[in-house]
Amino acid sequence: MPKVNPRTLSGFMELAPKEQMKLEKMMEILRRSYARYGFTPLDTPVIEAAEVLLAKGGGETEKQIYRFTKGDSDLALRFDLTVPLAKYVAAHYGELAFPFRRYQIGKVYRGERAQRGRFREFYQADIDVIGDGKLDILNEAEIPAIIYSTFTELGLKNFKIRVNNRKLLNGFYAMNGMSEKAGDIMRTVDKLDKIGPQKVKELLIDEVGMFPDKSENVLDFMAIQGDNAYVISRLEDYRGMDPLFDEGLDELITVTRYLSDFGVPEENFAVDLTIARGLDYYTGTVYETEMTKHPEIGSVCSGGRYDNLAGYYTDKALPGVGISIGLTRLFYVLNEQGLLSEELVTAPCDALILPMTDELGPAVAAATALRRAGVRTQLYGEKRKFKAKMAYADKIGVPFAVLIGEDEVREGVLSVKDMRSGEQQKLTPAEAAAFIRAEIEKRDGGAVILD
Amino acid sequence: MPKVNPRTLSGFMELAPKEQMKLEKMMEILRRSYARYGFTPLDTPVIEAAEVLLAKGGGETEKQIYRFTKGDSDLALRFDLTVPLAKYVAAHYGELAFPFRRYQIGKVYRGERAQRGRFREFYQADIDVIGDGKLDILNEAEIPAIIYSTFTELGLKNFKIRVNNRKLLNGFYAMNGMSEKAGDIMRTVDKLDKIGPQKVKELLIDEVGMFPDKSENVLDFMAIQGDNAYVISRLEDYRGMDPLFDEGLDELITVTRYLSDFGVPEENFAVDLTIARGLDYYTGTVYETEMTKHPEIGSVCSGGRYDNLAGYYTDKALPGVGISIGLTRLFYVLNEQGLLSEELVTAPCDALILPMTDELGPAVAAATALRRAGVRTQLYGEKRKFKAKMAYADKIGVPFAVLIGEDEVREGVLSVKDMRSGEQQKLTPAEAAAFIRAEIEKRDGGAVILD
Repeated sequence: MPKVNPRTLSGFMELAPKEQMKLEKMMEILRRSYARYGFTPLDTPVIEAAEVLLAKGGGETEKQIYRFTKGDSDLALRFDLTVPLAKYVAAHYGELAFPFRRYQIGKVYRGERAQRGRFREFYQADIDVIGDGKLDILNEAEIPAIIYSTFTELGLKNFKIRVNNRKLLNGFYAMNGMSEKAGDIMRTVDKLDKIGPQKVKELLIDEVGMFPDKSENVLDFMAIQGDNAYVISRLEDYRGMDPLFDEGLDELITVTRYLSDFGVPEENFAVDLTIARGLDYYTGTVYETEMTKHPEIGSVCSGGRYDNLAGYYTDKALPGVGISIGLTRLFYVLNEQGLLSEELVTAPCDALILPMTDELGPAVAAATALRRAGVRTQLYGEKRKFKAKMAYADKIGVPFAVLIGEDEVREGVLSVKDMRSGEQQKLTPAEAAAFIRAEIEKRDGGAVILD
Repeated sequence: MPKVNPRTLSGFMELAPKEQMKLEKMMEILRRSYARYGFTPLDTPVIEAAEVLLAKGGGETEKQIYRFTKGDSDLALRFDLTVPLAKYVAAHYGELAFPFRRYQIGKVYRGERAQRGRFREFYQADIDVIGDGKLDILNEAEIPAIIYSTFTELGLKNFKIRVNNRKLLNGFYAMNGMSEKAGDIMRTVDKLDKIGPQKVKELLIDEVGMFPDKSENVLDFMAIQGDNAYVISRLEDYRGMDPLFDEGLDELITVTRYLSDFGVPEENFAVDLTIARGLDYYTGTVYETEMTKHPEIGSVCSGGRYDNLAGYYTDKALPGVGISIGLTRLFYVLNEQGLLSEELVTAPCDALILPMTDELGPAVAAATALRRAGVRTQLYGEKRKFKAKMAYADKIGVPFAVLIGEDEVREGVLSVKDMRSGEQQKLTPAEAAAFIRAEIEKRDGGAVILD
């Protein structure tokens, strides 16, 4: 029979079992961490009506989207988790209590040009807090506190959450009379890291069409750097010139103060005036998160405050604040860089039972006992030679092999072999379960990410 | 601005937060249970190349599939988790250790005619064991044992896993010289429950074209019912007439014996000769699972033994055995029938902190303390009246409200209010965390499903 090549599409991640297990451990930590901060899990369809997903319309999104018809229906795959959230909140408004706090970890789809480390199907892990009409600024400080806690639990150490405020930026542009050019300016300033201030200044003059003194003002402002107290003290120099700026500055001060209250160390967050994010969506605090030893990766977690989540669906004013981890890309990069722990247990089971007798009853009983005690147990039922059985145990990387021969059956014990040290001991099923569980807990105690 | 209706497509399940939480609890139990039996989690793309997904081709599948083009690519959404597994195993054959045991809980897509309780996007929760060339029959007994354990942990009591064997059936048809009509016969016999034996007999004669005496033989065989020992003793009467039948009978005897060894009570499994499953895929033991008080639902968990998982992709002989829970449908039915527990904690958090002072520092500190102690905690930061805050606590159904006013700040305590009983007590943060955790564990201790 002619065979079809069992290929996976390019841009679609499909992991080997051990790698998948690491990703699962990361997802489990995300779920637990988000839940601990009082977010409810949400799940929305991957397919939506195209008119619903594209209500906002516009540029890049529309080009990248997976859109198709089925029967008479014009359908599309979600390209983020924010639009489905907006739809959900608008549709279920009456049933929800506000602030509505949800997390969602799900796959989204973008038909980007395929290249290494770029994915067309990828997980996002989002949290958002949605208010009804109003939403307190406390939430704008809690969101990065959650990211700090989550990243720390994952094992990340060298990261910095960069915080800015769109009112501050817009106020600054207004006081310089360059509000209408704000978009172009921000896109140009975004290149500071790559091309440096001199080149940015040239672009501001030549391409954005700014006067040299004004472009100087922008560069001076963007050059304000240092610890948070220093940056804020320098920003105070601009106070009184524009009400929106002052409002933004007050918000920034409040957010940085609360961030300390939430126990986020200053080394993990910084006011960064060059952060702007999306141009027409965010309206207050904005965030980006950088792995400080790997700035080349770009932001691994971004978001901010918005005033109008669902304006395309409802007249209700629904302000919110949220942040999104690009999980698939983060995992890919960590895996590539060898930053994922090899210490954790990634085998399909903790214990592999290898029966040495024809009659399998005692092995089945042992498997049942270990499982009831919470040991992830595989019963190897294939009739193969001892050497082949041990080779299988090695290949799956199981921590413990449990041998049951005639002696063990007669004595009512299990021979538990530590596959790492080679040590073997006879234990009752209850002892074996307790021993294996304690050992697994020890080995699995470390973080997923080594940083 | 004209609004787009924030609708969800028909046939796509989108749950309210409390319902979603119940589904999450079910999924968590499935993950834990599958892992305990030594299955590794797998994740494969939702989108595959159409030629890969449709390698097998054929009928109903092709009509229902979501298929579309993006650029030059002919793509399709997965319609089950078995074809992606076959692709995965064929593609990763060299990296895998066999038997390869994987579970996958994921969404699949079928463009069925929309009707109540029928979904176009739905979760399947699958386990499969794949051998390389051979696979011991022990696995055919372990699979239903896992389902028994999983269903029991979910809280299901009144269910029966029905077991049959395709070799037994095919052998029976062979000994009656009706092998070439086996497919038509099985499709007709499948109607026994609905139309009764007399009508089935008429159809076998009129439509399948059987002689009356042969159709009588079929009905006699299918009528064999009773406890497993009795059914097997009756099947022994047919031994010696067809080698395939004898092989199937031996397998059935072995499977039922091991099922007892695995601790599955006889009331939860039964040999049922009317079960056949897919006609050209399964080759040995087959399973269906019925909720005995709700036979109208049909099988909630089905599967069986197959000899050739990935013949469309590879020449390797890859026999396997697997079973699939139709999770979305199961959840829908249980929810409709009111069989999901209302006792479990489905609020987004265990504790809702309500600050009564303008200064939020102490509330932030309390939230951090409770979270570090593992209490799912929400900090309510909105500046609203006490009554509105309590109304919010009621609406999200939080088990405990934690009030922090000036007295509490001065005394260094938290006022913990049990929202169910109305009782309120002052506790230190550590006491509060321990008290709330213990209470939540108690309330969350029951099963998800009441049956």
